[in-house]
Amino acid sequence: MINIKLTVQYDGTNYAGFQVQPNVATIQGEIENALEKIYGTYIHIQGAGRTDAGVHALGQVAGFCLENLKMPISKLHQAINYYLPRDIRAISAEEEGDSFHARFSAKWREYIYVIDNSDIFVPFYDKYAYFYYKHKINTEVVNEYGKLLLGEHDFTSFCSSADENEVKFRYIERLYTIRKGNFVYLIIRGNAFLHNMVRIITGTLLELEHKKLPYKTILEILSAKDRTKALITAPAKGLYFRRVIY
Amino acid sequence: MINIKLTVQYDGTNYAGFQVQPNVATIQGEIENALEKIYGTYIHIQGAGRTDAGVHALGQVAGFCLENLKMPISKLHQAINYYLPRDIRAISAEEEGDSFHARFSAKWREYIYVIDNSDIFVPFYDKYAYFYYKHKINTEVVNEYGKLLLGEHDFTSFCSSADENEVKFRYIERLYTIRKGNFVYLIIRGNAFLHNMVRIITGTLLELEHKKLPYKTILEILSAKDRTKALITAPAKGLYFRRVIY
Repeated sequence: MINIKLTVQYDGTNYAGFQVQPNVATIQGEIENALEKIYGTYIHIQGAGRTDAGVHALGQVAGFCLENLKMPISKLHQAINYYLPRDIRAISAEEEGDSFHARFSAKWREYIYVIDNSDIFVPFYDKYAYFYYKHKINTEVVNEYGKLLLGEHDFTSFCSSADENEVKFRYIERLYTIRKGNFVYLIIRGNAFLHNMVRIITGTLLELEHKKLPYKTILEILSAKDRTKALITAPAKGLYFRRVIY
Repeated sequence: MINIKLTVQYDGTNYAGFQVQPNVATIQGEIENALEKIYGTYIHIQGAGRTDAGVHALGQVAGFCLENLKMPISKLHQAINYYLPRDIRAISAEEEGDSFHARFSAKWREYIYVIDNSDIFVPFYDKYAYFYYKHKINTEVVNEYGKLLLGEHDFTSFCSSADENEVKFRYIERLYTIRKGNFVYLIIRGNAFLHNMVRIITGTLLELEHKKLPYKTILEILSAKDRTKALITAPAKGLYFRRVIY
């Protein structure tokens, strides 16, 4: 068997998320459909991360096995794109060793959250950024709160009640915001993330900064292990699965 | 009567163009609906230019008359935005003298055409740029063809057969392309434009450069006064009505 690592970008606006679900369009479903059209048989793919409905990706990774490539590996992503809708694009395909697994081999997953911090809403960014106009975000203050989440913690307070993981410990390797003009970018990298975790962290950090709450508030939220203690869940449309580091 | 100049931005993806038409969503229709909700009566607006279905605007101007503002002029664009869909945004409202007319007072209309000249299609730009991957565009060559369209000409060859203007003479004041990374921007400014004129000029300039045709070809197309002599019509989604100069 040939072990393939496919890197994909997508505009998640019109999808119910990465993972296959009945009767709705999903990223996984579209990629599996494209592979079935090329190879004439169902091929299961494994995503490095499950993105929610409306979440985008710049560098999601899908892994799958083939018995026979039937083409040079350098042509595979183009063949897949031929059958994919325009809002999902394979950007590269690579052959990996037997031990590679898109999900279990991932060391770090990195997300970027895009905030449009303009005074006036710009219609072109509506599906691609969170329009946050309450005030001008002080990224240095956000970063002070964010530092307190670095390392390994139980993130029960920062995941949705729909999260089915028994163990809620996760390790955050980096978490910071930068401003470029009217845009603020939040970058977060961790070993893995719980359901809605990046969106709840983003919404909570913005709200703490907005309300000028003491830095220790975030530690209180963390130690409460109670989702109702965390604040706003930032909308899906600002979130991009940026890359996976193996 | 109070004469109002309203500046608006819109994502034209979901509209059948600026001008009101029966049974379809239009920019004019949405703005007139918003005004009717504020003032309780139908208020006709006049656009500085009619954009086609799918064409965007960064600085379209809509003019209309009010008997009574009922609010400070500085609040008017926000009141209108309250009733507009999110993909249309009023960015400012100004009071003008009696002689101002959004359409007839316009001296220059400026459009920008956005071309994504990457090798790999990026899904996020799909509704906002023309993905042109045939080859790397040489903007200097495009500009040499473009110079030959400057000044006043009969643009019959460069408008759609649906154009209803009897006189097809128009004056182009500037026309050039610039590259920023993988993006090429075509800027065109003229006194007025015929139906599809910017899109036919853009498509034709790109095709002339692609096929390395002699510079005089564009003069031959112009003097033929025949739409079938011009080349490709570039898609609506790359076109932005940028501003009006009064």
